[in-house]
Amino acid sequence: MIAVDVGGTTIKGAVVSRDGEFVHELSRATPCEHGSEAVTAELLAVISELREREPAAAAVGVVVPGAVDPVNGIARFSANLGFRDVPLRDLVTAATGLPALLDHDVRAAGVAERTVGVTAGVSDYLLAVIGTGIAGVLDSGGQNIRGASGIAGELGHVPVWPDGDLCPCGQRGCLERYASAASVSRRYAELSGRTLSAVDVVARCADDATAAQVWREATEALAIAFATCTMLLDPAMIVLGGGLSEAGEALLAPVRGELAERVVWREPPPVRLSGLGARAGRVGAAVLAWRLLGVEEFGSWERWSAEQ
Amino acid sequence: MIAVDVGGTTIKGAVVSRDGEFVHELSRATPCEHGSEAVTAELLAVISELREREPAAAAVGVVVPGAVDPVNGIARFSANLGFRDVPLRDLVTAATGLPALLDHDVRAAGVAERTVGVTAGVSDYLLAVIGTGIAGVLDSGGQNIRGASGIAGELGHVPVWPDGDLCPCGQRGCLERYASAASVSRRYAELSGRTLSAVDVVARCADDATAAQVWREATEALAIAFATCTMLLDPAMIVLGGGLSEAGEALLAPVRGELAERVVWREPPPVRLSGLGARAGRVGAAVLAWRLLGVEEFGSWERWSAEQ
Repeated sequence: MIAVDVGGTTIKGAVVSRDGEFVHELSRATPCEHGSEAVTAELLAVISELREREPAAAAVGVVVPGAVDPVNGIARFSANLGFRDVPLRDLVTAATGLPALLDHDVRAAGVAERTVGVTAGVSDYLLAVIGTGIAGVLDSGGQNIRGASGIAGELGHVPVWPDGDLCPCGQRGCLERYASAASVSRRYAELSGRTLSAVDVVARCADDATAAQVWREATEALAIAFATCTMLLDPAMIVLGGGLSEAGEALLAPVRGELAERVVWREPPPVRLSGLGARAGRVGAAVLAWRLLGVEEFGSWERWSAEQ
Repeated sequence: MIAVDVGGTTIKGAVVSRDGEFVHELSRATPCEHGSEAVTAELLAVISELREREPAAAAVGVVVPGAVDPVNGIARFSANLGFRDVPLRDLVTAATGLPALLDHDVRAAGVAERTVGVTAGVSDYLLAVIGTGIAGVLDSGGQNIRGASGIAGELGHVPVWPDGDLCPCGQRGCLERYASAASVSRRYAELSGRTLSAVDVVARCADDATAAQVWREATEALAIAFATCTMLLDPAMIVLGGGLSEAGEALLAPVRGELAERVVWREPPPVRLSGLGARAGRVGAAVLAWRLLGVEEFGSWERWSAEQ
């Protein structure tokens, strides 16, 4: 099984076994600056290279950000990748001769979490996918909350400080403006003049007051949004996923502490780390691709249900 | 059909016809200060008086705030009314010989809205019940969001200004602290030294800068909470109900305006007034009581689906 997660920074591919093991992995920079056709060509090159390593691969699952039509396999719109009505699924099948599917990256992360991750068997939860941006997967009563127009879960644009920083989306004080990996890096650069990745900012917190301040505001913003979600949705669990979740305890401890300060008349829900990290999109793509082939049993994928 | 809504200020009763008409209405002050037994006695007196006016009434529906066990008909806990494990349903049946039911006031308002109100046929909506406190009813994909422990919908305790006023619940910046009828009245009194009802504060906005400021903050707080709900849940409609919704256009216009300022990258959902106002709990109690008698058809109740 070939699974590919096309992100704004990298195209991440993997060959995933029937037991959920990442047998081969491969990443390429996403050539966003060269437009939609270059991105599509690089995606097909990644798939081709993975197939050389695993000629027996039987299907391809691809996930992308933005607006996606999974039924027709079309990438409707993605600002970063330049996609506008690109029939990616059929392009993959034409290039490989294999059955393929296209889905949304965050929806796929939700599929991964509830099928083989820490929320397997949990009916009510919030999964916060914290990467370049921030998105949410909300399940209630065992059903995914999709919304009237299919765009529920925009956790990154919840106004945590309603008169706060202007977001490129046009709104003020959006969670994403403080707590995404991109914003942690940007805010640190604005204050210190140095450009570091979010992970490097987190690593400097003990010795660098500016790093500590940026990270404290990021985790505080997350806790405010989670307090709001707790009031509205009463989840049994909040799960931290996406690339920034690989910060581990440095993320978990302050978020738990701040949430306990802000949810006081009821028990705050437990906050856990996803076991999937930056692989969530590909695990979801692989689960969906195996399902495409009729597989419905994923009991042997328990490696993904352990916290990082 | 006899329907009674036991609130913290008044016990509101009605005889409701098969067509949803309020044939008789009756209100009594709730004797909270005399404790749970006095409240129960007054409830039974209201039911008895309504029954004298309509001897053919076939069942009784009662709704109360707080923690309610509708299956066993027990008022588990209500701080204002003093209820602790009071078997209200059986007490009503013992006093009247009629079948009875007990349910939660906000849940009943949700039943009313989705069965005969403006959200009938709408799968994804937020109903904000704005009275002495603020509660929410959230439906997604045609299912009510109940939460892992059954306490979802605590809209009144969403932190709209997270470092704002301390709420009696122990949290800071709760919506209810700015926008409930009780808070509008309290905030006006704090600033002006004069005690007026929320409705009277609203009525003075044109000529009284303090009233205008309090009301502006109330409607701004509502819009912030609604922007958050729009991001998370993508509702097709936001409905304003509860006693304060009787402010009508004076509530609707600023909330719509502020929401359009705060939801900019997508269309904000339409905001409408409930047609039920302060009668929502009783309409819900009546619907549930008619259902108890096997009635499932409420097409003739269309009077409640028109906006106020």
